[in-house]
Amino acid sequence: MGQNLALNIADKGFPISVYNRTTSKVDETLNRAQIEGNLPLTGHYTPRDFILSIQKPRSVIILVKAGAPVDQTIAALSAHMEPGDTIIDGGNEWYENTERRIVEANNKGLFYLGMGVSGGEEGARNGPSLMPGGSYEAYANIKDVLEKVAAQVEDGPCVTYIGEGGSGNFVKMVHNGIEYGDMQLISEAYDVLKNVGGLSNLELANIFDEWNRGELESFLIEITSDIFKVKDEHGEGELVDKILDKTGMKGTGKWTVQQAAELSVAAPTIAASLDCRYLSGLKDERVAAAAVLAEAGLEDEVGTVRTGIDRKRLIDDVRQALYASKICSYAQGMNLLRAKSLEKNWNLNLGELARIWKGGCIIRAVFLDRIKKAYQRNPNLASLVVDPDFAKEMVQRQAAWRRVVGLAISAGISTPGMCASLAYFDTYRRARLPANLVQAQRDLFGAHTYERVDRAGAFHTEWTKLARKNA
Amino acid sequence: MGQNLALNIADKGFPISVYNRTTSKVDETLNRAQIEGNLPLTGHYTPRDFILSIQKPRSVIILVKAGAPVDQTIAALSAHMEPGDTIIDGGNEWYENTERRIVEANNKGLFYLGMGVSGGEEGARNGPSLMPGGSYEAYANIKDVLEKVAAQVEDGPCVTYIGEGGSGNFVKMVHNGIEYGDMQLISEAYDVLKNVGGLSNLELANIFDEWNRGELESFLIEITSDIFKVKDEHGEGELVDKILDKTGMKGTGKWTVQQAAELSVAAPTIAASLDCRYLSGLKDERVAAAAVLAEAGLEDEVGTVRTGIDRKRLIDDVRQALYASKICSYAQGMNLLRAKSLEKNWNLNLGELARIWKGGCIIRAVFLDRIKKAYQRNPNLASLVVDPDFAKEMVQRQAAWRRVVGLAISAGISTPGMCASLAYFDTYRRARLPANLVQAQRDLFGAHTYERVDRAGAFHTEWTKLARKNA
Repeated sequence: MGQNLALNIADKGFPISVYNRTTSKVDETLNRAQIEGNLPLTGHYTPRDFILSIQKPRSVIILVKAGAPVDQTIAALSAHMEPGDTIIDGGNEWYENTERRIVEANNKGLFYLGMGVSGGEEGARNGPSLMPGGSYEAYANIKDVLEKVAAQVEDGPCVTYIGEGGSGNFVKMVHNGIEYGDMQLISEAYDVLKNVGGLSNLELANIFDEWNRGELESFLIEITSDIFKVKDEHGEGELVDKILDKTGMKGTGKWTVQQAAELSVAAPTIAASLDCRYLSGLKDERVAAAAVLAEAGLEDEVGTVRTGIDRKRLIDDVRQALYASKICSYAQGMNLLRAKSLEKNWNLNLGELARIWKGGCIIRAVFLDRIKKAYQRNPNLASLVVDPDFAKEMVQRQAAWRRVVGLAISAGISTPGMCASLAYFDTYRRARLPANLVQAQRDLFGAHTYERVDRAGAFHTEWTKLARKNA
Repeated sequence: MGQNLALNIADKGFPISVYNRTTSKVDETLNRAQIEGNLPLTGHYTPRDFILSIQKPRSVIILVKAGAPVDQTIAALSAHMEPGDTIIDGGNEWYENTERRIVEANNKGLFYLGMGVSGGEEGARNGPSLMPGGSYEAYANIKDVLEKVAAQVEDGPCVTYIGEGGSGNFVKMVHNGIEYGDMQLISEAYDVLKNVGGLSNLELANIFDEWNRGELESFLIEITSDIFKVKDEHGEGELVDKILDKTGMKGTGKWTVQQAAELSVAAPTIAASLDCRYLSGLKDERVAAAAVLAEAGLEDEVGTVRTGIDRKRLIDDVRQALYASKICSYAQGMNLLRAKSLEKNWNLNLGELARIWKGGCIIRAVFLDRIKKAYQRNPNLASLVVDPDFAKEMVQRQAAWRRVVGLAISAGISTPGMCASLAYFDTYRRARLPANLVQAQRDLFGAHTYERVDRAGAFHTEWTKLARKNA
């Protein structure tokens, strides 16, 4: 990723120095710089040479594994840096580590940015989405570079100053949590279409192509179509069927879920996607469970294509279910960002965050422009689902959404993400929940008291005594 | 709670000293000790007098708010304690705080226990479930007392030595997470029966009474029946309808969800119950959302009793859905305990934990005996749902379960906990999940590689290139 980002910067006409502990990596980068157009890139083999080659005030971007390697790299480089220079960490770092490093850097007179970078290898080379947070002064120093290097969309480059402290890392973390949700929801759409609808990989490829020309238009929908088209070079059919159903992960999804719990924000769709990654990892247990439950009499209809299914309607329903579920997931992510922004006084601009995700990053999608506009219309929007435009869309899609989730449930297919989104929607939109009963229970066994709908105050009742008296 | 526990101890014939910073609390306790049978209880007004009044080796139980107050209390008391004495914290403490205090106590030659206490005020007085973890020596010193004080069930007192370190607090934390899940699932059963089935509070009271004579027999089902019977003293009808639908919480549910994420354990039912507490708190937002979505055309059928519903069948279905959902929730909690036990080398005995929850605590229930037996049959049981007996029950109940969740979804009623349990069950029992697609996506944009079902190794594919070539 570092190599691609360096080439991208050089490609935009900014002379750049590169350094890596492994000298062959430096040579490889120099080589690519030559091949890809004689780019203004110089290679260095010691931290000292590297730092001294840079014009002051220096801005140094580091891209190493999060955690201890970042501290080690900072120690190695900062020994040669001077007050006024800036360190920029482009990794998926835990935001509190960045906040600690900002203080440590400041003590040496250095500026510091924790910058989320999304877009993978390809995005780094051709235009990522950049989420720099920390020292505004440091940002101002390299604003011109970042704005050229970032992906470009019709309303500007996909970069903005996020806010102080670890806000850049935090925003990237939530971006990744949303990405988990998107991928999970797409996999559920695939599951229902394949196992209930009986669609082939090539039919799925065409459907995702078609979806990519409508409201779902996005990078993840586009690449999903591509995936279904790839043949298996080792055998018959498409490669996707040969891939083991175990999913890896790298920590940002977990942090997102933990932070949501910490901040009292419900983020069930993102949590469901994390749980599915965990459960996918238990492949052996799942195979054993399928056998035990079959023995116990479970007639497994999963994988049995339903007869009498109207495929055209199913496809259309799944598209709507996917879209509605996705809106709920983004609503959760945005509300998590707002809660953290309030806690940390980051002053996050949610509309601007949606804008810089429109290009370059993994969740880039046309509908982010509509999220941007929703927050521009009302920066204090309580939830995306109550924005008048999104509210209308949710209402239009709810019948299809309920049909898909209901069908999946009766077919024994789990759609945990779609279920979680729907339950979230139905909980959030209800003026009256059955939480009155929970509060009565808490008052009964823990004397936690309750409020009333018709008068102010905190009340406690001797429930058991009164119930038994009435009996 | 401290007062009730002290009276309970004295009631069992163990002379006890009590102390509180607020002298009136001490007097109140002395007074109750007189009234409740001239119990062997003495009151003290300074930490020094209190400690010196106790026979050596001393065992001191503290029950104060978790966090800093515990440290302050330990400081005040330990100044007068001697090597060999024991401090027992009976609060809902974060297990790592207990582990820190164990070390601090050891440095002074003191023993330390972090003891989960469940059962509320009433349980503390008449027999709680006790979960002591930390120094085994300290446990041995007061084993006789705890075994008399705890709730008694047919296979022994509801106390056992949990394990080293903060294990007692951790087990209590998960107990509370399971309690959150139980309460949420009961509230969903109430919601469906009331708003889809049209049942009155008195009908609900009778149904919960009936359920309490079957497989659902438990404290929470029993008190729910009581709650529906209580009349509103300020007006017409039953009090439950006048309670504001906002639920409080105290932190252990949040920790459970965060620890599940940390340990890669899926605990979606417990997470859904936490989310519902958060969403219940957003009462004003929910009322506003209901209005906006009604304006956007949402025809709200919530609260509209369905015509043509077979009420008898609905009631029976909801009972089965509640039971099946509950088993999944307990499976999650137990698996979380096992994961932590492995991480910390606590050697938790899951069957024994189920046993000590059979009496005294909030989740006490007849079916915990069946959980105990499942782990006795197979201490390495991968999940409760694959125990042969539970597997059979899940399979028998699945049709009803799917009907209830499907009906709720079509009626626009959220049953987040039941949905989460069902999605968990359907994910865990599937030999093949659509996670292959997620892994293909990760390989495409991040070169994360994938495994294959038919050959060993890690593979990477140039998806986009191959897809476009085939096109």
